[in-house]
Amino acid sequence: MGLTIIDKLESQTFIEQTLNDFYSKNNSSNENKPLQDADKKNDWKIPNQKLARMIDHTNLKPEATEDEIKKLCEEAKQYSFASVCVNPCNVALCRELLKDSIVKVCTVIGFPLGANTTETKKFEAEQAIANGATEVDMVINVGRLKQDDYQYVFNDVNQVAQSAKKNDALSKVILETALLTDEEKVKACLICKEAGADFVKTSTGFSKGGATTTDVALMKYIVGSAIGVKASGGIRTRKDAEDMVSSGADRIGASASVKIVLSEKSES
Amino acid sequence: MGLTIIDKLESQTFIEQTLNDFYSKNNSSNENKPLQDADKKNDWKIPNQKLARMIDHTNLKPEATEDEIKKLCEEAKQYSFASVCVNPCNVALCRELLKDSIVKVCTVIGFPLGANTTETKKFEAEQAIANGATEVDMVINVGRLKQDDYQYVFNDVNQVAQSAKKNDALSKVILETALLTDEEKVKACLICKEAGADFVKTSTGFSKGGATTTDVALMKYIVGSAIGVKASGGIRTRKDAEDMVSSGADRIGASASVKIVLSEKSES
Repeated sequence: MGLTIIDKLESQTFIEQTLNDFYSKNNSSNENKPLQDADKKNDWKIPNQKLARMIDHTNLKPEATEDEIKKLCEEAKQYSFASVCVNPCNVALCRELLKDSIVKVCTVIGFPLGANTTETKKFEAEQAIANGATEVDMVINVGRLKQDDYQYVFNDVNQVAQSAKKNDALSKVILETALLTDEEKVKACLICKEAGADFVKTSTGFSKGGATTTDVALMKYIVGSAIGVKASGGIRTRKDAEDMVSSGADRIGASASVKIVLSEKSES
Repeated sequence: MGLTIIDKLESQTFIEQTLNDFYSKNNSSNENKPLQDADKKNDWKIPNQKLARMIDHTNLKPEATEDEIKKLCEEAKQYSFASVCVNPCNVALCRELLKDSIVKVCTVIGFPLGANTTETKKFEAEQAIANGATEVDMVINVGRLKQDDYQYVFNDVNQVAQSAKKNDALSKVILETALLTDEEKVKACLICKEAGADFVKTSTGFSKGGATTTDVALMKYIVGSAIGVKASGGIRTRKDAEDMVSSGADRIGASASVKIVLSEKSES
C-alpha cells in the first residue's frame, strides 16, 4: 500500500473534506441524477436489454435446492442477465448449466460476515474460480476497518483481487454499508480501489439494511470511473433498480430480477 | 457411510416412527423434564459454576473490534465460561489472550450459511485449529439436506469432524433448525452422529429463529448420550438457559452469558 493512500486514510481532514464536497454537490445540483430532474422524470428510462445485462440474478439462500438453482440459471439465460450469483457450493452446477450461454457465474467469498481469515477468503476464491466462477463478490472485514487496521483490510482485499485478476475473473468487494459510518464508507472505497478490486458493492442482503441511492452515489463519487459500483440488498422493483443506476450503479444484485425486467412498461 | 444409516435415512417409515415415538414421550410424560414438573419447579436449579462451564461466550458480530474481543475474553476468564466463540479472524488473538486460562477458543466454520464447498470448510477448520481453536462449530449444508443428498451432507460433516478429531479438537454441527422440518432435523442428527461430530447445535443466531426447548429435546432424543447437544440463538436469560439444559442441552451458546450467570438469585 503506497504512502499516499495511507496518508489519505489517516488524515481526518482529507476524509471530512471529501465527504463535505460530496454532500454539497449532492444537495446543490441534481444535473447528474436524471430521475430527480423534473424535466427528465418521465423520459429517462433504461432500455430493458441494457438493464438486464447489468443484473446479477441472485439466489444466496442457504436452503436453496438444485431445482431452485436450475430455475435461476434458466431465467438468467432467458433474460440475458449479466450473471447468476450463487453460493460457492452451487458454482460447478451453474457453470455446467450455463456453459453455452453468455451468462456468467458469480459467487460470494467470506459471505456474509467477512470475518474469515484472509487465507480462507483467498482459498475460497481460487477454488470457486477453478470450479467455473468468473466473478467473485467478497465481503470486507468490517471489524478491522472499524479499528482502523487499514493494512489488514487492504491485504484482505488485495489477496482476493489478485487471485481473481491472475485468473481473468472480476472481484467485487462488499462493504456492508449498513454497518458503516460515511467516513468508513469513504475509507473502504479508497482501500478497495488501491487494492485492485474491480467493483465496490453495497450490501450482502443479510445485514440490517441494503443499498441506498445516497450510498451508491457516494461510492461512485469516491471510486470514479476507475472501478464499478454494484448496488445490492433490497432492490425489489424496476424503480429501485433505475434509481440505483441513475445514482451511479454499474451493476445491480437482485433476486426479483425477472419482475424488474418484466415491469418495464407497467411502472412507466 | 454404512448401509444401515442410509437405509434409515431413506425409510420414510423409520423417520416417521422415530418422530411419533418422540412426540408421544414428550407429551405423555414430563418426568425427564424437571422444569415442567410442578414439584421440582422451585427447587431445580443449575449451580452457577456448573452453568458457566456449559456456556460458549459468543461474539460473532462482523463489526466486532479488537477491544470487544478482548472484553469477551476477560469476561470468559472471570466467569470461567467453557469457551469464547468468535469468528475465525479473531482466533489467534483469543488464543493469545487465553493461553494461561482454562477457557477454550471456539470458532465457526462455513458460517452462517453453510453453503461453502466442503473443501473450503475443511481448509477453514484446519487453519482455525492451527491458529489455536480447539472447538469448531460448522454449519450443515441445508440445501443439500433438503434435496436428500445425504452422501454430500455426510461427507461435508465428516471432513470437518475428522480434521478436528485428528487435531484433538471438538466439532459441533449447526443444523439451523429454523430452516428445517422435524423430519429433516431427525435426518441431520442421524448423519452428524454417523459422521463423527461431537455435538449437534441448533442455530447460528443469524437466521429467522433460534433454539427451542422442543428442538433441543428432539435432538437429544435422536443422538442420545453418544454426542452432545448445543442450544444457541436467542438464549438471553437465566430461565432460557435453564430451560435448554433441562430439555437436554449439554452446552449453551450465548452473548448474554454474564447476565445469565449474574441473575442466579434474581430470577429464582
